Amino acid sequence: MEAIEALLTRRSIRKFTDQPVTDEHVDTILKAAMYAPSAGNTQPWHFVVVRDRELLDMVPEFHPYARMILQSPVAILVCGDRDLQKFDGFWIQDCSAATENLLLAVHGLGLGAVWLGVHPRPERIEGARKLFDLPDNILPLSLIPIGYPDESKPDPERFKPERVHLNKW
Amino acid sequence: MEAIEALLTRRSIRKFTDQPVTDEHVDTILKAAMYAPSAGNTQPWHFVVVRDRELLDMVPEFHPYARMILQSPVAILVCGDRDLQKFDGFWIQDCSAATENLLLAVHGLGLGAVWLGVHPRPERIEGARKLFDLPDNILPLSLIPIGYPDESKPDPERFKPERVHLNKW
Repeated sequence: MEAIEALLTRRSIRKFTDQPVTDEHVDTILKAAMYAPSAGNTQPWHFVVVRDRELLDMVPEFHPYARMILQSPVAILVCGDRDLQKFDGFWIQDCSAATENLLLAVHGLGLGAVWLGVHPRPERIEGARKLFDLPDNILPLSLIPIGYPDESKPDPERFKPERVHLNKW
Repeated sequence: MEAIEALLTRRSIRKFTDQPVTDEHVDTILKAAMYAPSAGNTQPWHFVVVRDRELLDMVPEFHPYARMILQSPVAILVCGDRDLQKFDGFWIQDCSAATENLLLAVHGLGLGAVWLGVHPRPERIEGARKLFDLPDNILPLSLIPIGYPDESKPDPERFKPERVHLNKW
């Protein structure tokens, strides 16, 4: 798939087939995530690849919009590492760029995924911390269920010319 | 350019040739940015396209890492809109995803760019607010100088297997 096309056709996928996702695809997805830009190139991120069915099924207990994870064969938790951060406060942007790269790699491979927000909601952060045994310096940003799409979506036509300003507001 | 290749070869470009960037390319870049995911699909973003040479040249007065903007023919300021946000605190992630889409579109078109962090540094936020006449509800996140690359960079080999965890930390 061509790069611009991938950017314009990626959508949130919440329905998945039974087809498993290979480790090779997961590695490609993780690599793309790690090639995201970060403040001062600090790369302050970690990734928890969750394949354990029991763990996946427990996510909706702390996340209100995560029911689709019951069908996804794998999910990736994107985390910031407070100890790796050199530029205070930028880990959110860095891990968001990594999350977006991850979603685009998923789409480029013919898979589907959805960005479940974790940070800054305290109950979701604590739920993820407990379920995945995260140390105190590890800050969960997003959780991404991944699988083969069992839905397709039309072009949402998101371009809004009124959101563009020339030179000054 | 193929999507996965684009993700793995995008780099921060800080040297630009004199070649101008067309309005058509800028439109494609903005469209890609607006197709980013956002919390609850709120799309809480605005974009200031800066082509005015005088404005571009004043950016280094408030941003310490922005000297390359003296050579770039155009820059885009990515902003969040507090009034468009439905899910408190998610605008940073939303606008970061839009910024990353923007950078990938730039790269996919054969252009180059670099992510200059604005939020959460107060002096950069205020500098951008004054220079670009931003209203109080508009929160500048990042500033992206764009042009034709006058440098090429080798593969940085960023994949770090020690940052990957299976099922639990």
